[in-house]
Amino acid sequence: MRRPAREAIDRLLHPKSIAVAGSLREARFGGHVTTGNLQRFGFGGRIYPVNPQYREVLGLPVYPRVRDIPEPVDLVVTMAGAAAVPGIIADAVHNGARTAIIISDGFGERSQDGKRLQQEVSRTAAAGGLRLLGPNTIGVANPAIGLITTPYRVTYGRMITGGISLCAQTGLIGPQNMPLEETHYGLSKMCDFGNKCDIDEIDLLEYLADDPDTKVIAMHLEDIRQGQLFLKRAKAAAARKPVIVLKPGRSRESRRAMASHTGSLAGEDQVYDGAFRQAGVIRVDSFRELIDIPKVFASQPLPRGHRLAIVTISGGAGVMGIDVATANGLALARFSPDTLAKLAAISPVLAGNPVDLGPGLPAYQVPGGIASRFPAMIEAVLHDDNVDCLAMACPWGVRGKIAEVFGPMVRRQAKTMAVWVAGPSLTIAEEMNREFESIGLPTYPDGDAAIKALSVAARYSRIRAGLRGTEV
Amino acid sequence: MRRPAREAIDRLLHPKSIAVAGSLREARFGGHVTTGNLQRFGFGGRIYPVNPQYREVLGLPVYPRVRDIPEPVDLVVTMAGAAAVPGIIADAVHNGARTAIIISDGFGERSQDGKRLQQEVSRTAAAGGLRLLGPNTIGVANPAIGLITTPYRVTYGRMITGGISLCAQTGLIGPQNMPLEETHYGLSKMCDFGNKCDIDEIDLLEYLADDPDTKVIAMHLEDIRQGQLFLKRAKAAAARKPVIVLKPGRSRESRRAMASHTGSLAGEDQVYDGAFRQAGVIRVDSFRELIDIPKVFASQPLPRGHRLAIVTISGGAGVMGIDVATANGLALARFSPDTLAKLAAISPVLAGNPVDLGPGLPAYQVPGGIASRFPAMIEAVLHDDNVDCLAMACPWGVRGKIAEVFGPMVRRQAKTMAVWVAGPSLTIAEEMNREFESIGLPTYPDGDAAIKALSVAARYSRIRAGLRGTEV
Repeated sequence: MRRPAREAIDRLLHPKSIAVAGSLREARFGGHVTTGNLQRFGFGGRIYPVNPQYREVLGLPVYPRVRDIPEPVDLVVTMAGAAAVPGIIADAVHNGARTAIIISDGFGERSQDGKRLQQEVSRTAAAGGLRLLGPNTIGVANPAIGLITTPYRVTYGRMITGGISLCAQTGLIGPQNMPLEETHYGLSKMCDFGNKCDIDEIDLLEYLADDPDTKVIAMHLEDIRQGQLFLKRAKAAAARKPVIVLKPGRSRESRRAMASHTGSLAGEDQVYDGAFRQAGVIRVDSFRELIDIPKVFASQPLPRGHRLAIVTISGGAGVMGIDVATANGLALARFSPDTLAKLAAISPVLAGNPVDLGPGLPAYQVPGGIASRFPAMIEAVLHDDNVDCLAMACPWGVRGKIAEVFGPMVRRQAKTMAVWVAGPSLTIAEEMNREFESIGLPTYPDGDAAIKALSVAARYSRIRAGLRGTEV
Repeated sequence: MRRPAREAIDRLLHPKSIAVAGSLREARFGGHVTTGNLQRFGFGGRIYPVNPQYREVLGLPVYPRVRDIPEPVDLVVTMAGAAAVPGIIADAVHNGARTAIIISDGFGERSQDGKRLQQEVSRTAAAGGLRLLGPNTIGVANPAIGLITTPYRVTYGRMITGGISLCAQTGLIGPQNMPLEETHYGLSKMCDFGNKCDIDEIDLLEYLADDPDTKVIAMHLEDIRQGQLFLKRAKAAAARKPVIVLKPGRSRESRRAMASHTGSLAGEDQVYDGAFRQAGVIRVDSFRELIDIPKVFASQPLPRGHRLAIVTISGGAGVMGIDVATANGLALARFSPDTLAKLAAISPVLAGNPVDLGPGLPAYQVPGGIASRFPAMIEAVLHDDNVDCLAMACPWGVRGKIAEVFGPMVRRQAKTMAVWVAGPSLTIAEEMNREFESIGLPTYPDGDAAIKALSVAARYSRIRAGLRGTEV
C-alpha cells in the first residue's frame, strides 16, 4: 500500500523551516557544512542547527535536540551516525516535523544490522506521520528558494533556476559534484533517493509531472520496485513532459554491485528496454547524457519533425555529424532553393547542408567580422520550412557578443537548436557556453552530443504525439 | 605507382628551413599568423616570409618570390589564393625545395576547375621532385622542434611533446582547434592530409610506424584510396604500435557530404569494419575517442589481461562503470583475500571491487586527510595479481599534491591506469587533470571514457599478441 506523498514532497522541496541535526564542527562534511550551504545559497526560511554540544553556530542558536525546537519544522536533515538516527527521528516525530532527510549511511546498503535499523526508523516515522527521504542520500535542492541539503562543501554559492528536475539513486547529481553555476545549468528540483525507505521514484514522478516549474524529468534509477505502477505513472508523465531515464545494471556484475551500495536488488535488464519504450520513457546510456540531454527540453521548443540542419566550422565535423544524426533517427534537411540562394549571397562557399563555415572563415575576418554575417546565415537556415532543428558550431569571432548576435534570433525562432563550441582553450569555450546558456541556447561538449540531444527531442516529439493521440 | 615518401616526410616534419608564402597582413588568418606561430612556438630553423609587397615582417626579411630565397628550403608553406599556387609551386621547384604544404583551398574539393588546378600543381611538383601535402590542409605540427604551420591564430604558445601522432583529413586536429597546452596533451606529430594530391595516409602510416617518438597512431580517414595496401601497412604498423582509426561515412548522406568537402568519394561502409579488424586496426566511433583514447597508450604499459579494478567516489558511478566495462570486453577483477584485507585495514567500508570511496569520504576528512590514505589504497589494488588495469576516480582532497601522492606509485607500477576527476568546478577538475597528465597518468572526462580507453588498451594487447604470433 502506497501512502500519498504529494503534500510531503511539497514540504520537502519548499520547506519554510529546517532542522539540521549532525556534527557542527567546522569540516568538509557535516551539519556545519549543510547549515553554511543553506545560508550561502540564500535559503530564506528558518534554520535550526541541532547538537547538544553547541550553543551557537554560524550566527544561529543551536538546539540540543530536535524536540527542543519551538515550532514543528517542515524538514529535518540529519547526517548523524546511523546509531543516533532512531533517536533523532523519534524526536522529529515528537516535534511534529513533516519530513526528514536521512543523509547518514550505514543502513540497508551496509549490513543486516543496518537493514534492521532502517526498518526501525521507517516504522517510527510512519507511525508518527513523518515522511522520509533516504537514508544514504545527499538530499534535495531547489534553486528557486536556495534549498540545498548536501553535507559536502560546494565551491560555489549560487544555483541557476531552470526547468530541469534531476533525480537519482546517487549523490553524483548533487551540487557538490556538479558545476551547476559554471555551466549555467538551469535546475528546477534535485532529489537523491538514497535507499528509498519511504519516498521513492514513483512519488517524485507524480509530483514532478504536475510541477509547473519542471519542464523535463531526468531520473537515474538503479532499481524500480513497483515496475507496473512506475510505468503507468511514467506514461502519464511522458504525455505532458519528457521523462528521461538512466537505468544501469545491464550486466550481472553491475547488478551485484548495485545490491551492495543501495541494498536493493534489480531485475534482469532486458525487460526494461521494451517496458520503457511502451511507456514513452526515453532511456539514455550514460550519466553525461542524463545530465546534458534534458537541457534541450528546458529551453527549446519541440521539433515538429526530424529534419536537421548542421552549421559547422569544419567539413569533417559536418560529415561526422551526419553519421550521428542518421544513426539516431534524424535526416539531413534539404534546403529550399530560396535558402540556398540566401546562403550563396552571404558567401559562395556556403553550398548547402551542412553549412560549412570552414572555407569561409578567412574571408569572415574582414571588417565587421563573422559576427555580422552570423545572424543572416542562421536566420536563413531557421526560416527554411524543410528544417526542423539546428545543430550549430560557433566560431570564436562572436565571443562576448553572443547575447547581442543571437539573443533577438532566439526570441524570434521557434525551432529546436543545440550549440557546441570547440577551440584551443577550454576556458574560452566554457565562457562562450555560459553566454549561450544564459540566453537560453543549450550547449554541448561536441557536435555528436548536440545532435544526439536534438535526436532525442525529435523522438520525444513523436512519443508525445502518440501518447496524446491514444489518450484523447 | 607510389613514390617512396619517407625521406620527404622526414623533411616535412623536421624542416631546417621554411618559406611562408601568403598574405603577410596582420590578421587572424594567413602567412603573418603562420610566421608568428613558428616564432612563438620556438621553431629553431630558418623562416623565409615570401610576398612581393613587403620588405620585412616580424623582424624577418621578406623575399618577393620563393625562387629568390638564397637556399633550397626543406619546406614551402603557402596559403595564397588558389590561382597563385601554381606559380608558387613552380617557384618552389626552381628553388630546389623538398616539400610544400598547400594550405589554400578552392581545389579538388570545390569545383571542376579546382580539380584541374590541383592536377596541374601535382604535375609541376612531381616533375620537379617536390613532394606535396594538401591542398586544403592546415599542415603539420611537431612540438619537439616548435613546428606549426596552421594559418589560424593559436591562443597558446607551447605544445607538449609526447607519444601521440594524429593524422586527419580535417583541420579539426590542428593546434588552433585543440587545447593541447591546457590539457597537457603530449603530441609527437600532427598531419592534416587535406585533399591528398600527393602525400597520403599510407605514407604517414609507414613513417609513423618507424618513428621512435610515436607510440600510438591515430587517424581520421574520410577516404582510403588504396585499401589493400593501406590494410597491409596498417597490419605491419599494428604489430608494433596501436593504430586507431576514425572512419566516418557510415551513412550514404555523410558519404555525399565527404565528397563535397575533400573532393573524394568513399566506398560503402560495411567493408571497413571487417577489414580493419583483420588488419588489427582499432576503429573508434567519435572524434573525441580518436583524440582521447590514444592517451592511455602514450603513457601506460599495455595490460596483460582484461581484469579491471575500479576506484570510485560513488557507488552509483561504480555500477555505471561496470556496465561500460562489460559492454567493452573487460571483466571486473576479483580481489585476492590479501587485497581485501589490506583495504579493510584502511577502512571497513572499502569492501571490494569497485572500491567505493564514497561512504568513507567523511572519515577521510580527519587530519592527514584522504591524501595520506590514497597511496596505500591504490597500491593494494595495483599489487593484486588479479588486476590488469585500474580506472580511478580522484576526490579533490589530493588537489595540488598529485605529483607527490601519485608520482612514486606511477614510477613503480606496471599496470595500465586511467583517471577521471569530477566535481563542482570545471576549472579545478582541469587543474587536477593537468597535474595527472604531467606525471604521465592519462585523464578522461568521465568514468565511462576512462574505462573505454582501458578496454581498447586490453583489446590492443590481444591484437598485438596475435599479430606477432602469426608473424614470428
